[in-house]
Amino acid sequence: MLVNGNPGNSISIEDRGLLYGDGLFETILCEKGSPILFMEHMQRLQFGCRKLNFSDPNTELIRSEALSVANGEDCLVKVVLTRGESARGYYYDASTVNYTRIIYRSNLPKVLQENWSNGIRLYLCKHRLAENRDLAGYKHLNRLDQVLARAEWNQEFAEGVTLSTRGHVIEGTMSNIFLQVNDQWITPKIDQCGVQGVMRDFICQHAAEFSIACQQKEVSLTELKHADAIFVCNSVIGVWPVIHFEGKDYPFSQSVKNLMQYLRQNVSYLYNV
Amino acid sequence: MLVNGNPGNSISIEDRGLLYGDGLFETILCEKGSPILFMEHMQRLQFGCRKLNFSDPNTELIRSEALSVANGEDCLVKVVLTRGESARGYYYDASTVNYTRIIYRSNLPKVLQENWSNGIRLYLCKHRLAENRDLAGYKHLNRLDQVLARAEWNQEFAEGVTLSTRGHVIEGTMSNIFLQVNDQWITPKIDQCGVQGVMRDFICQHAAEFSIACQQKEVSLTELKHADAIFVCNSVIGVWPVIHFEGKDYPFSQSVKNLMQYLRQNVSYLYNV
Repeated sequence: MLVNGNPGNSISIEDRGLLYGDGLFETILCEKGSPILFMEHMQRLQFGCRKLNFSDPNTELIRSEALSVANGEDCLVKVVLTRGESARGYYYDASTVNYTRIIYRSNLPKVLQENWSNGIRLYLCKHRLAENRDLAGYKHLNRLDQVLARAEWNQEFAEGVTLSTRGHVIEGTMSNIFLQVNDQWITPKIDQCGVQGVMRDFICQHAAEFSIACQQKEVSLTELKHADAIFVCNSVIGVWPVIHFEGKDYPFSQSVKNLMQYLRQNVSYLYNV
Repeated sequence: MLVNGNPGNSISIEDRGLLYGDGLFETILCEKGSPILFMEHMQRLQFGCRKLNFSDPNTELIRSEALSVANGEDCLVKVVLTRGESARGYYYDASTVNYTRIIYRSNLPKVLQENWSNGIRLYLCKHRLAENRDLAGYKHLNRLDQVLARAEWNQEFAEGVTLSTRGHVIEGTMSNIFLQVNDQWITPKIDQCGVQGVMRDFICQHAAEFSIACQQKEVSLTELKHADAIFVCNSVIGVWPVIHFEGKDYPFSQSVKNLMQYLRQNVSYLYNV
């Protein structure tokens, strides 16, 4: 665990990351210690830094610290950047900010092999995501919506899908979601809420390689229920096909199998059965 | 500074308060070490604890720790409760939660005497508040909306007013707002976003003592601009009359003077010129 480059496992109780969620994070899969989709994570981190008026992240420093904590192993590395401490109150003096940079590893999640090989059951969350154009897409530290949504079930489902306040389908609590409709992949727009997932972007950019058109649009719950196939994705789990949602079974479609194989071959063997 | 009752100024980097803003806070004015409106703060904290599925706060323990850190002085005491650490991810096992309780003091803000005696200039924030019925009213640790709104100006204004995504007037970045219209006080409803301020509630409950009717309703920006008088309030500053907003001057109305005098006499002399 590194805090501003020094071994440590604590931060000040006056850090704005704690007091206001005034910061950003990335969770990066590491394969034998090597961060997967690292530049994509850093691009999103930079996107967030610019929104919050942080200086651009020092990508090479973060890479070097990530390599250090990953220590050659298969693991996750979490990167947290906060605005550090300030005088009391929401105001900060932009000329004297001392950011807090936290980098630490954790073990790979104990994902059931079945999630990849057999697919998952998807829960429909009652808690809805706040709509906020100004913060949509960013992976910031204000994540109470996700906490409350995830608290609605225990282990009966591998993931839950959340709707926006207005009732549009947005994403999973920790993943993005795709629908297959007539051989096209659709993923909800995230311009009002939701996180711009690294894996979501990767899939949209590479879908053409499987001759699949990929579209970002508003998605209703009815559209989701009537999809030909559904999958969720993130950079840690890769892709999980959904086989059951709201009383209905969904097939493990060939194009999703092709995508999963592509990710294993081209991104990481850790997305493996 | 106390962390779970022990002297300390740091928390774990894996605390959910930092990682997700999974917690609540209160900032309490202390007059000669005695917490002002303490039970009102504890009621709001309990309201939040129930929303987040925390156990009810131990009010007597918090009072005793607040008295200890306030140490007989005029100061602020901040109380932060978080869900503590959990395994990685949004999920937590409700049966094994170890909350983090942080209680520390800070100095009274250096409020310009002029804010009370002459009133303040109010800024109109461009950043809008996310609407989210499920989290409206609570004083939780997800405060990026307030950080971004407050970052729009430096010291040219004492406070800024924020609108909701749909454009309704909601509150100040650190205060609630009241309009006076035809000898009635109006404060925006906070059922879609905003914080249920302790001072806001106190004023609504006591307005009748000045023969003022007090109403909570949706407020448009036009209504705010056309108000006869405006003031902002919170439990730390008491009441600040607004004398200028969006190019228009507002009077320091007699009923607001009466309210301020009432607060000084009945709540704390610290709301004083």
